[in-house]
Amino acid sequence: MENGNSSGDNKSSRKPIRCKAAVSRKAGEPLVMEEIMVAPPQPYEVRIRIICTALCHSDVTFWKLQVPPACFPRILGHEAIGVVESVGENVKEVVEGDTVLPTFMPDCGDCVDCKSHKSNLCSKFPFKVSPWMPRYENSSRFTDLNGQTLFHFLNVSSFSEYTVLDVANIVKIDSSIPPSRACLLSCGVSTGVGAAWETAKVEQGSTVVIFGLGSIGLAVAEGARLCGASRIIGVDINPAKFQVGQNFGITEFVNSMTCEKKRVSEVINEMTGGGADYCFECVGSSSLVQEAYACCRQGWGKTITLGVDKPGSQICLDSFDVLHHGKILLGSLFGGLKAKTHIPLLLKRYLSNELELDKFVTHEMKFEEINDAFQLLLEGKCIRAWRGCLRDVKAGATSMEKWLTVVGYP
Amino acid sequence: MENGNSSGDNKSSRKPIRCKAAVSRKAGEPLVMEEIMVAPPQPYEVRIRIICTALCHSDVTFWKLQVPPACFPRILGHEAIGVVESVGENVKEVVEGDTVLPTFMPDCGDCVDCKSHKSNLCSKFPFKVSPWMPRYENSSRFTDLNGQTLFHFLNVSSFSEYTVLDVANIVKIDSSIPPSRACLLSCGVSTGVGAAWETAKVEQGSTVVIFGLGSIGLAVAEGARLCGASRIIGVDINPAKFQVGQNFGITEFVNSMTCEKKRVSEVINEMTGGGADYCFECVGSSSLVQEAYACCRQGWGKTITLGVDKPGSQICLDSFDVLHHGKILLGSLFGGLKAKTHIPLLLKRYLSNELELDKFVTHEMKFEEINDAFQLLLEGKCIRAWRGCLRDVKAGATSMEKWLTVVGYP
Repeated sequence: MENGNSSGDNKSSRKPIRCKAAVSRKAGEPLVMEEIMVAPPQPYEVRIRIICTALCHSDVTFWKLQVPPACFPRILGHEAIGVVESVGENVKEVVEGDTVLPTFMPDCGDCVDCKSHKSNLCSKFPFKVSPWMPRYENSSRFTDLNGQTLFHFLNVSSFSEYTVLDVANIVKIDSSIPPSRACLLSCGVSTGVGAAWETAKVEQGSTVVIFGLGSIGLAVAEGARLCGASRIIGVDINPAKFQVGQNFGITEFVNSMTCEKKRVSEVINEMTGGGADYCFECVGSSSLVQEAYACCRQGWGKTITLGVDKPGSQICLDSFDVLHHGKILLGSLFGGLKAKTHIPLLLKRYLSNELELDKFVTHEMKFEEINDAFQLLLEGKCIRAWRGCLRDVKAGATSMEKWLTVVGYP
Repeated sequence: MENGNSSGDNKSSRKPIRCKAAVSRKAGEPLVMEEIMVAPPQPYEVRIRIICTALCHSDVTFWKLQVPPACFPRILGHEAIGVVESVGENVKEVVEGDTVLPTFMPDCGDCVDCKSHKSNLCSKFPFKVSPWMPRYENSSRFTDLNGQTLFHFLNVSSFSEYTVLDVANIVKIDSSIPPSRACLLSCGVSTGVGAAWETAKVEQGSTVVIFGLGSIGLAVAEGARLCGASRIIGVDINPAKFQVGQNFGITEFVNSMTCEKKRVSEVINEMTGGGADYCFECVGSSSLVQEAYACCRQGWGKTITLGVDKPGSQICLDSFDVLHHGKILLGSLFGGLKAKTHIPLLLKRYLSNELELDKFVTHEMKFEEINDAFQLLLEGKCIRAWRGCLRDVKAGATSMEKWLTVVGYP
């Protein structure tokens, strides 16, 4: 790894850094491992050195997507951990050397939403899949060696040795936590665990149904287990997922492909004697949200959507059911978590052996093998249930090791 | 008023009572004031003498309706107050002479829902618009003088001097409360006030939008005012409703007919700088629920449905909005209130001059004028915003006075 700061100036933050990155140059084509330039952080920005990154399904979605909001060339990756290399002006939250988790969800701490315990949707920097830095219009910190702009992704762009983030998108954490575990809280595990814990507020002894046992669904199961749910029913079309799910607290399994002539909601209503307390839709199918709504319990049942369906798809509910059944429909983005408040709490629960992160990791791979990681996900053997990790072997090392971790597969 | 118990037997509860009732014999045709027989209460039932009844829009809906669940001949009316005349076996909650409010929503006190603070949907006697007593299959307590069965309505049937209710459908209350006011809590005012107070849990200083300023919408405004909302925006197609609404705490008015080329949700989003904390749909239009959802605030906005749309109508929401905007959709039946727990609390707030019931009463009419009351509602001058009241002048009187009260009209 080389540093563009060759002058010996101790204001390294003012110099660009030259480093390796895996650049997505064209939809669906292998990432190109190349050297790029990472500009210094602007005011309220932080440049970090990535220690470890995971690969999330959203990276693959935007890698395959041929239409906006996809754009190329782009540096993907958003589930990671890093160390602060330098800070821009007005950054008081961290200093060089601090360990941070990047998060795609901004948490500015100043707006009415960030100050309220009820919202995790920063209104100063509303979440969007933008190719730019959040605070500066049409502004990227990446260029290739020909001077071409490289686009950012989800405010993070972690498939690079160095990246720049807005201070609203970092969480300072305890550096003693294993990076290959901590990075999982940057997106996927937090999203699922948070949906059970913070969005749904799953209660002790309750019954939970999870539609889709990918990594998000398994993380919901982990969250429901932590909240003390007594029945966690997993629904998937792949029967192998039941065995996987048992490690995450799934107690019963419904194969929605073999429900015979019944709708899956009917099967769940029969199993639960009238519906579950909480139903989580983790597939991204509006019709499955409707099924989830149909088998959450009258009186207090909550249906929580986590999956991303096609643009324009509609969730349609019978108005009579909405009025008469006392059910609640709500979405959960990043598990309803406020990054700077809740991620440190989840890390504490990991350190106290409550939250189990190790089981989410099943493969480790080298950074240079990142295209193999993409292929592993695309092969579909583990469907969406995997994480890829990339890190330095030790601080200051010039070579990198990588992990690809098929979640839930023993 | 005559009593069928002419034997002098002190077990009057075992004898039918002959009394006056306003019978709905055919859809949309004037009610027939006639004598009927009211059977004694069965186990877990209570026969009460109606002191005062109001007329709610649901009575008119089912009077006009020509298809099931409408049925004839029927005794309508469900918003009332009465005195216990006799009790069936196993009734421990009340004794003869107790003052009670009937409620269409059962509250058995025994089932998992009634025991939970989270639900007001009794699972032992699920709410339905049945023509029968709730506990006994195909069982009516009413016959006309030719022996023909008369159907019950909403578990109450208060357009009769005597009626029989399941013990799950009565709330014992303090007899000192003016009956023409207390009866309003039997349905409409409780529904609206409860939706703000119990379903939405409106917070101090918040912004509330109410779609439809009929009696339910005005009761929501009263509830929001009680909860300390600082802005209560009323939406209606009738501009006269703004003046009416001001008495109920409405601070701003939007005429949805004169929004020019904007959707009403756009207007509200502009007025509120991004949406209201709580939106209540009190009209019964699924498309208006969608508008309400579109102008409740990102992060924590709640959309609460109270209106009844046509059977089969669908509320369709964009799946992206549901996932990304942190909004909540829920229905409110009887304001989310548990009748036996919450009605006494609302009555206390009336007696302490917090909850204002008097302003809901604007007309008083005689029982014999009940068809005029129906016409008054149908004329539409007061749209749905009225209540009709019927009561004895004093206990034991043989003649009756009545009220028709156009809500909100000075």
